[in-house]
Amino acid sequence: MSRIVTLLTDFGTTDGYVGELKGVLATSAAGVSIVDIAHDIAAHDVDGARLALARYWRRFPEGTVHLVVVDPGVGSARAALAVASEGRFLVGPDNGVLSPALLNAGARCVALEVPASAAPTFHGRDVFAPAAAELAQGIALDALGEPCMDPEIRRTPEATRRQDGAVVGVVISIDRFGNAVTNLVARRGGNNDLGGRAIPLRRTYADAAPGELIALVGSSGLVELALREGSAAAALGLRRGAAVVLVPPPSGP
Amino acid sequence: MSRIVTLLTDFGTTDGYVGELKGVLATSAAGVSIVDIAHDIAAHDVDGARLALARYWRRFPEGTVHLVVVDPGVGSARAALAVASEGRFLVGPDNGVLSPALLNAGARCVALEVPASAAPTFHGRDVFAPAAAELAQGIALDALGEPCMDPEIRRTPEATRRQDGAVVGVVISIDRFGNAVTNLVARRGGNNDLGGRAIPLRRTYADAAPGELIALVGSSGLVELALREGSAAAALGLRRGAAVVLVPPPSGP
Amino acid sequence: MSRIVTLLTDFGTTDGYVGELKGVLATSAAGVSIVDIAHDIAAHDVDGARLALARYWRRFPEGTVHLVVVDPGVGSARAALAVASEGRFLVGPDNGVLSPALLNAGARCVALEVPASAAPTFHGRDVFAPAAAELAQGIALDALGEPCMDPEIRRTPEATRRQDGAVVGVVISIDRFGNAVTNLVARRGGNNDLGGRAIPLRRTYADAAPGELIALVGSSGLVELALREGSAAAALGLRRGAAVVLVPPPSGP
Repeated sequence: MSRIVTLLTDFGTTDGYVGELKGVLATSAAGVSIVDIAHDIAAHDVDGARLALARYWRRFPEGTVHLVVVDPGVGSARAALAVASEGRFLVGPDNGVLSPALLNAGARCVALEVPASAAPTFHGRDVFAPAAAELAQGIALDALGEPCMDPEIRRTPEATRRQDGAVVGVVISIDRFGNAVTNLVARRGGNNDLGGRAIPLRRTYADAAPGELIALVGSSGLVELALREGSAAAALGLRRGAAVVLVPPPSGP
Repeated sequence: MSRIVTLLTDFGTTDGYVGELKGVLATSAAGVSIVDIAHDIAAHDVDGARLALARYWRRFPEGTVHLVVVDPGVGSARAALAVASEGRFLVGPDNGVLSPALLNAGARCVALEVPASAAPTFHGRDVFAPAAAELAQGIALDALGEPCMDPEIRRTPEATRRQDGAVVGVVISIDRFGNAVTNLVARRGGNNDLGGRAIPLRRTYADAAPGELIALVGSSGLVELALREGSAAAALGLRRGAAVVLVPPPSGP
Repeated sequence: MSRIVTLLTDFGTTDGYVGELKGVLATSAAGVSIVDIAHDIAAHDVDGARLALARYWRRFPEGTVHLVVVDPGVGSARAALAVASEGRFLVGPDNGVLSPALLNAGARCVALEVPASAAPTFHGRDVFAPAAAELAQGIALDALGEPCMDPEIRRTPEATRRQDGAVVGVVISIDRFGNAVTNLVARRGGNNDLGGRAIPLRRTYADAAPGELIALVGSSGLVELALREGSAAAALGLRRGAAVVLVPPPSGP
């Protein structure tokens, strides 16, 4: 069966850069199955790509190669990585974007060699896609480079608990619907006082009355703020990184 | 031969939700051929998705599975459907989005079971994609659930004729080029007096003089208002739902 | 092995037009591998599509069919073309968009017949996709039509040298990152005085200091103006077609 290579970039599609990547893959790994994840990651948004990757990389079958090119440091001294983790492979720059796979126990990582012929502004085409093609053809990770040293790791910050018992988190992303995804784990069975505003915890979007702001546990297990068929982020003026405080309910008698 | 699963959603691609869907499909239906239709349907725009689906679902070969997830009622009591119609399969929420296939004589429909483990905010990943994968592997429709009862149907409104002979229609969509697609059937062999403004009926966009507003019969057989290399919708201030009146020519002597 | 058909259009995806194209391909050429390049080329932007195509068409394996539909003249007298060049095939309108392949020595070209049943507004679906499907199935180019006569060629203008030695070029595209790609070939080993502003030539984006405007030789060999993690085009107010003057350094003693 043909191997899958998925693509996540911040290239957009109109310039033909993604076309070049795909051409290299199709030529170097005949029969490979190319699956687009996204090419409209905001330019240079390593954290946005990392969070998207965290959602999907393990859902693909073993043997899948995930190519991730959000690479503001292209051509600099930053390493170029290939990673094996939980039976999947990942290829991308050493800037933290591959952290979801690198953080797994048992992850292995090599530093790709950058050929002298590689365009210093386009490692996606000249370094990462060729490596992904090799992995898709079954070439062993270790054949692609020397073990990588101390790859950069980026983590989603953890929520912290204040002395008064409140939990302080942040908005980690605003999704396409305007839902504000936080790093909070919800207190089930009660309302959540978020930043001084009582926001009821519901099961799903449709449980909100029109115009009602709610919290819910999203599909990755984290608390989201949502507005039914509207943008909670716009309504609250929330952006990525905004603080969200979860105040505990008053103690019962 | 591997079966095709097409994807139409309002998820956007940057958040990784589509990546999750695709991972489920690739894992559950090995070798499936995933074909993107669109992920930039406006958030919650069930009618927009329905109209797009009407264009393409029958053009794919028999056995194709069309996965359609525009689902503002996710997690609520609305049913989750799988449909067989004209040899194709469709999977999506019971909100009218699958009407083009449901309206066909001979269409069959089952209500999918929603497992307790399904995230109430992401049936695309946990209910619809698994069902699409089963259909893509040749599992029978009837094995997926009980016959569905009274699925929601949405229809494009039909144009009506006034007592004075004028035909009153509406703009059903504005396409990417700014063409305003109506529900009118054109009067061939003459000009069309649309809303008091004589608009000539042409064969194609290039038949218009620069800046000239024209009507034409579009590729799905309906009258469109178009402006050569410009946006008729912007020029006329038209939006979806705007009324368009087709006045008959004065009777001949 | 299944043949690849790549798609480059200005259709957007929300309207379902691309879905129709893909349905025709999947039905007419069973097992074909459909690869998206872009569907968000600006409406009617033949030059933008031509420049994107120039980047990727040769990177795909021999036998690949590149379908390119940016076609403001659809339904008019402009010819519909199929081209064979360097072992790849291309299908699209005769408006210059296929020039990168047509300009190659040895390129062959036929004019497709337009069936009476073709919608005059949608040759992508009714003329080009069927022809691409035939080529993907191994049908010979010559079987698709008569040799084409004098196809339209569009070229990127060449930079010119003024009497004072300055080289006058233009911005040929602004990429997704705001880099302004010019038609200039860089003078290596020195700074480039671009339009009276000394702009250092660097190797890659990361070599710039934050906020520093640089020039570099991009991945297609042309000079780009870039701003580290910012938009050079926005900073300089550059658009496609803007003149860029490269002034030679003063002669040495």
